[in-house]
Amino acid sequence: MQKEANSVGLTATKTFTIPDKIHLESGIEFGPVQVAYETYGTLNENADNAILLLHALTGDAHAAGYHDEKDKKPGWWDDMVGPGKAFDTDKYFVISSNMLGGCSGTTGPCSINPDTGKPYGLSFPVITIEDAVKVQKRLVEFLGVKRLIVAGGSMGGMQALEWSISNADMVSAVIIIASTSRLSAQGIAFNAVGRNAILSDPNFNDGNYYDKEKQPEKGLAIARMVGHITYLCEESMHKKFGRRFQYSDRPNFDFNIDFQVESYLEHQGRTFVDRFDANSYLYITKAVDYFDLAQKHGSLKSAFEKTKARFLVISFTSDWLFPTSQSKEIVQALIKAGRDVSFCEIESPCGHDAFLLEFETQTKIVKSFLEKGEENV
Amino acid sequence: MQKEANSVGLTATKTFTIPDKIHLESGIEFGPVQVAYETYGTLNENADNAILLLHALTGDAHAAGYHDEKDKKPGWWDDMVGPGKAFDTDKYFVISSNMLGGCSGTTGPCSINPDTGKPYGLSFPVITIEDAVKVQKRLVEFLGVKRLIVAGGSMGGMQALEWSISNADMVSAVIIIASTSRLSAQGIAFNAVGRNAILSDPNFNDGNYYDKEKQPEKGLAIARMVGHITYLCEESMHKKFGRRFQYSDRPNFDFNIDFQVESYLEHQGRTFVDRFDANSYLYITKAVDYFDLAQKHGSLKSAFEKTKARFLVISFTSDWLFPTSQSKEIVQALIKAGRDVSFCEIESPCGHDAFLLEFETQTKIVKSFLEKGEENV
Repeated sequence: MQKEANSVGLTATKTFTIPDKIHLESGIEFGPVQVAYETYGTLNENADNAILLLHALTGDAHAAGYHDEKDKKPGWWDDMVGPGKAFDTDKYFVISSNMLGGCSGTTGPCSINPDTGKPYGLSFPVITIEDAVKVQKRLVEFLGVKRLIVAGGSMGGMQALEWSISNADMVSAVIIIASTSRLSAQGIAFNAVGRNAILSDPNFNDGNYYDKEKQPEKGLAIARMVGHITYLCEESMHKKFGRRFQYSDRPNFDFNIDFQVESYLEHQGRTFVDRFDANSYLYITKAVDYFDLAQKHGSLKSAFEKTKARFLVISFTSDWLFPTSQSKEIVQALIKAGRDVSFCEIESPCGHDAFLLEFETQTKIVKSFLEKGEENV
Repeated sequence: MQKEANSVGLTATKTFTIPDKIHLESGIEFGPVQVAYETYGTLNENADNAILLLHALTGDAHAAGYHDEKDKKPGWWDDMVGPGKAFDTDKYFVISSNMLGGCSGTTGPCSINPDTGKPYGLSFPVITIEDAVKVQKRLVEFLGVKRLIVAGGSMGGMQALEWSISNADMVSAVIIIASTSRLSAQGIAFNAVGRNAILSDPNFNDGNYYDKEKQPEKGLAIARMVGHITYLCEESMHKKFGRRFQYSDRPNFDFNIDFQVESYLEHQGRTFVDRFDANSYLYITKAVDYFDLAQKHGSLKSAFEKTKARFLVISFTSDWLFPTSQSKEIVQALIKAGRDVSFCEIESPCGHDAFLLEFETQTKIVKSFLEKGEENV
């Protein structure tokens, strides 16, 4: 833990259990659902200064601060959350929760099914972004929040969009970063390859591996490697690794790791399996695949006509997973729907990962957007 | 077999065995090497009307015509090879051979090692593009060719470039389509994921699977799926599949195939394992990874100063695996080296695969380039 003046400091993940069942988009009534969450800052008397942060594919509730003084790394969006930061905890009550289907405290396929006493595995219901938002809604109600701002990058942006539509009366402002209103065919294809790698791993065992000696680590690692290629871009890979060899200045002439980029991917795959569940990867990528606001609401314009919030849309020049063109689709539909929208494309060589890295420019834009809302109060 | 006036008709793959050993770039002396090849058209008296076609990653010697009257599909570049076609068999003696390390008749890891009586498997030496070209050189010498044109798309373009440098006195013209002078970090990353999927398949068994009941089909299928994402592009995937479901108009809410794009990838993976060898996939992708003319010759300009041929470089607007920028690097270095080079970027929505699909425009450009050479004779 680095001592920083503007850190939220030590934090802890808490849990809340929704007392009744959730009606899922698939038609299933599902429960009980436990939600893992963290909060930073204080809810004001009007209960209208909340910001709900929504994590990306493999994120968790731990968005800011440190769980332990010995922690080397803070939460996943620590650069953006704290006193004086973009999401200013001196002003706002910031909430972050683990997504339904996840594996970091919120009910997911690795949770114990109370009916059987065993982990759900593949008996966990297939969920959607809408379902995840329903669960988050119950959490913010439990926390006493009446009105809120929603913000997220990548899959988190999908959830922010869903929030603005399905809970229009609660949402005052929406911040969507490096996201999209529907996953592209290419995006589905990358997710399909990752799922295929997991499902093909003989240790996957139809999702029943939790009590087994061997886990589907190889399949999950391959899924993560594919993912990381899409989070970077050719430019960032060229800068980071180029064609440099990992161990010497010449080829190995074997099938061990030759190039730095191979070593990077191998490392990403290997470390991911320690913190993420293969079943959760299946469920969450599937929820992302299904997300398509235009298909669901007839058109993107119709979808956004249901909203009542101000919007900020941010994209990055080198993001080819959720490229600027997809952000512009959102912006154009919001304008057609007569909504208040600000848009910024940030020049960045960091690819899709930029939403986790380019915090200086993001901070300026987000602060300015939020201050505009504060003036209007 | 469709009866077409401009087809080369029935063809057969022949073999030639190099009598002595090949000195590989890794330092190993390797042999015997058998080469599978086909020829179309007739070598002229001066033995200088040959065109050597060089196949891409998973191609073979069967570039044109049909092996059997019942064949539904012709060779892989049939649209480009035949009487009156781009590679006009009325004028030229066209040669196509399977690459060293392949699995379609040329010696590769699935071939029997005469010293052991068993397939080489991973005891096969790691090979490079230079090694593949050395083998091709022995073939064209055996066929009596004195002077030739070399042409190839994708990895075939890498071999064409290598030919122009290492056999400068033999090569009069070079046609490089959708190729590059060095694989990018992102390209290495995609290949690394594919190899990882194969190496992680428990049926891979350290490459010794040829006599086993189970083959590393799942790993090889995943490698092929990743490959196909890079051969298409977001635009072509959007046109071909969009977000359409395969079997109904709504999500399955399970982990079977939902979207058409998933079905396509699954089909590509499943059919690939019937025609390709997992070990060959490892060896050939590794050869591609190692290809880097600038690194080998000090600079791309130095590399091309060794050439004596005319060059035609073709790229496609939507190819993001070997994008136009990489073709332009080749063109600029050729110009710096004082070489005669023509360059054309073809507008196409087909991605990298365009070199196998956009034959009408390619034909015009290639014909015009070859005719210029014919005038000069």
